[in-house]
Amino acid sequence: MLHKAILLILDGLGDRPIPELGHLTPLEKATAPNLDRLAREGICGLMSVLGPGFVPGSDVAHLTIFGYDIHNYYAGRGPIEAVGLGLQLAGGDVALRGNLSTVDDDLTILDRRAGGITDVSGLVRDLDGLEIDGVRFIVRPGTAHRAAVIMRGQGLSAAITDPDSHFDSPKACDPEPTDHSPEAKFTAEVVSKFIARSHEILARSPINTDRKARGLLPANFMLLRGAGKHNNLPSFEEKYGLKACGIAGAGLYKGLATYAGMTLIDVPGATGLEDTDVRAKFTAALRCLETFDFVFVHVKATDSLSHDGNYEGKAAFIEKIDAAAEILLNRPDGVLLVVTGDHTTSCTRRNHTADPVPILMHAPHGDSLRVDQVTAFGERPCQQGGLGKILGIDVMPEVMTLLNRSRMIGT
Amino acid sequence: MLHKAILLILDGLGDRPIPELGHLTPLEKATAPNLDRLAREGICGLMSVLGPGFVPGSDVAHLTIFGYDIHNYYAGRGPIEAVGLGLQLAGGDVALRGNLSTVDDDLTILDRRAGGITDVSGLVRDLDGLEIDGVRFIVRPGTAHRAAVIMRGQGLSAAITDPDSHFDSPKACDPEPTDHSPEAKFTAEVVSKFIARSHEILARSPINTDRKARGLLPANFMLLRGAGKHNNLPSFEEKYGLKACGIAGAGLYKGLATYAGMTLIDVPGATGLEDTDVRAKFTAALRCLETFDFVFVHVKATDSLSHDGNYEGKAAFIEKIDAAAEILLNRPDGVLLVVTGDHTTSCTRRNHTADPVPILMHAPHGDSLRVDQVTAFGERPCQQGGLGKILGIDVMPEVMTLLNRSRMIGT
Repeated sequence: MLHKAILLILDGLGDRPIPELGHLTPLEKATAPNLDRLAREGICGLMSVLGPGFVPGSDVAHLTIFGYDIHNYYAGRGPIEAVGLGLQLAGGDVALRGNLSTVDDDLTILDRRAGGITDVSGLVRDLDGLEIDGVRFIVRPGTAHRAAVIMRGQGLSAAITDPDSHFDSPKACDPEPTDHSPEAKFTAEVVSKFIARSHEILARSPINTDRKARGLLPANFMLLRGAGKHNNLPSFEEKYGLKACGIAGAGLYKGLATYAGMTLIDVPGATGLEDTDVRAKFTAALRCLETFDFVFVHVKATDSLSHDGNYEGKAAFIEKIDAAAEILLNRPDGVLLVVTGDHTTSCTRRNHTADPVPILMHAPHGDSLRVDQVTAFGERPCQQGGLGKILGIDVMPEVMTLLNRSRMIGT
Repeated sequence: MLHKAILLILDGLGDRPIPELGHLTPLEKATAPNLDRLAREGICGLMSVLGPGFVPGSDVAHLTIFGYDIHNYYAGRGPIEAVGLGLQLAGGDVALRGNLSTVDDDLTILDRRAGGITDVSGLVRDLDGLEIDGVRFIVRPGTAHRAAVIMRGQGLSAAITDPDSHFDSPKACDPEPTDHSPEAKFTAEVVSKFIARSHEILARSPINTDRKARGLLPANFMLLRGAGKHNNLPSFEEKYGLKACGIAGAGLYKGLATYAGMTLIDVPGATGLEDTDVRAKFTAALRCLETFDFVFVHVKATDSLSHDGNYEGKAAFIEKIDAAAEILLNRPDGVLLVVTGDHTTSCTRRNHTADPVPILMHAPHGDSLRVDQVTAFGERPCQQGGLGKILGIDVMPEVMTLLNRSRMIGT
């Protein structure tokens, strides 16, 4: 009887047929005997994460596949990044994601990543603990140019525009309230003051003086975006009764696992890049089954290679995953394995698209599964799968059904 | 890369298996090598326009396939017919469709179409501009016995019953308000007065005196139905950023295209009947691609033949469309082609049914499409299609996905 599950998400797995690959997708092109065996022995389908025509961002996609209704539980990227860096959000806190950039005297953005700065911990230390109008700013360094910012105080709102103009304007800008509440107006004003104050502090930092002396761009400005409050979503365990953990290399996915209340498992060699140690992650996943009921494993590079338009690299990376998947095939009895992506990332478009993603569910000895006739894991083979076409929000209910944990309606 | 689209709707295309056709449907029975090629080179599926069990009317079906939520945007037939005749609706106007009929002194309806009258423009002219209780009536002739009526004035409501009793009663009747608002009460009273006044005017019209002298039934009574206000729906271009045009022979479909803000393209020979020049319509569609991003083409007779129970005629007409479809196969690169119906019209039932309709999407050289294994266009072959089972409201999101115009949710 199935009683535990592994959810393996290969980021941006889905793709469109590529003329240079003989009109196959990278997944269809890859020689992937283990994934094909999982498909052959399992039940397959296509997952439209948010429904036709909606292109899922990675954060929204993961929350949806975890079973959280994003209308209630998605609060922007800020809180997810903050918890991913190990910060605790209290009720009323507003979190933003930040990145250190370079501006000139005119506040024109010269480089959004401050000349490729690799460590902002020294610079960020000078901003941490700033108090403005009774609001305390907690600032922590992320990877490379990134940082997380938490605002703690009375009367804060997340209803402000991004003070980061992204690529729409060459100039840094101030946030605006997006509703008529005094809280939104107050928060926008405090963030504006923080931006100005932090710019002053960063501009005169000895670290930046030293960078300029070495011919590097100064990291003299904090771009902020994704303001959100923690939505106090129920943890994965509260929601499903499953003790859950997460294994990921890239920061966002650690954040998403933490956000859903999963225990984060650190795996040496899990880089979130093409060189990641997939075997180590899968081996760790099996070990986690001794303690946890549900193991989320995230592999990032399928997506990054698609954003680069590198379809051959994507196919080769899928082959690397496939070789490691032998470890998952040899997992203990009673453990359901789900393999899918969080969205399609088209190598020709070099971006996410709304096309559905292949999904397979596999059980040792076909335990409880209505095994279908699909014999390979791929976009086209999965069109014929027994799961049919499902939504992202359907994945966990399907898992719960197979784990015999679904709720009876009526009598 | 796909960047434009043609949507070809063959009205009432879907059907049920017919014993006399060896349990094939007319589409399955027809020898249609071009439609089959489109299916073989494309991706197919079945479309349930409104979901299982709902029988779509043509107006509701088209609005749904165009992507308009009918709960918000369907306001009855009146406004659609009015804009189809080139009338402009102002805010607050109520539009009704009318048809000139014959009643006796007792107001018993003798003929709903006034003895097959072919031109009501002279009769309608005497009603146009009537003012009743401050409400002005704008009346325009449609095809044959049909007319459009717009009420313009203060305090009007569309919440009235059809004053046309259809076939439920042999007698003409007055409208009733369907809510308790003073506007509905007032509108019902004004419409009642218009019906009485127009009956007086029509009864003494010299045109009717002449008809009677020639042994024809007088067109002495205006049957009204489908009261609605213009819903100010966003135009197709506002909604999708696609400059759109429509090609149709029959009035309702011209109205629907206009209602959705498409530019109407007049094609000589497009009659909306079995004799329509399908080749001319398809040729015009290709020419429209020079100016427009989205071309809606409507062909009517598949439906009319089904209402007549003429399954052999329907199959033969599909073969006529198929021969012309060669033109569409030779369209420029980058143009998605969608072929479907607006609903099933069963030749045995001689009416619309809720059965889903075959749909195919085709791209030159398979561009961006996850081409499936379907090799023929038909109700049964499409059951195996890669699009699976979709709703009418999903069609435009699927199109927008393939045109790379979908919206990202999250980051």
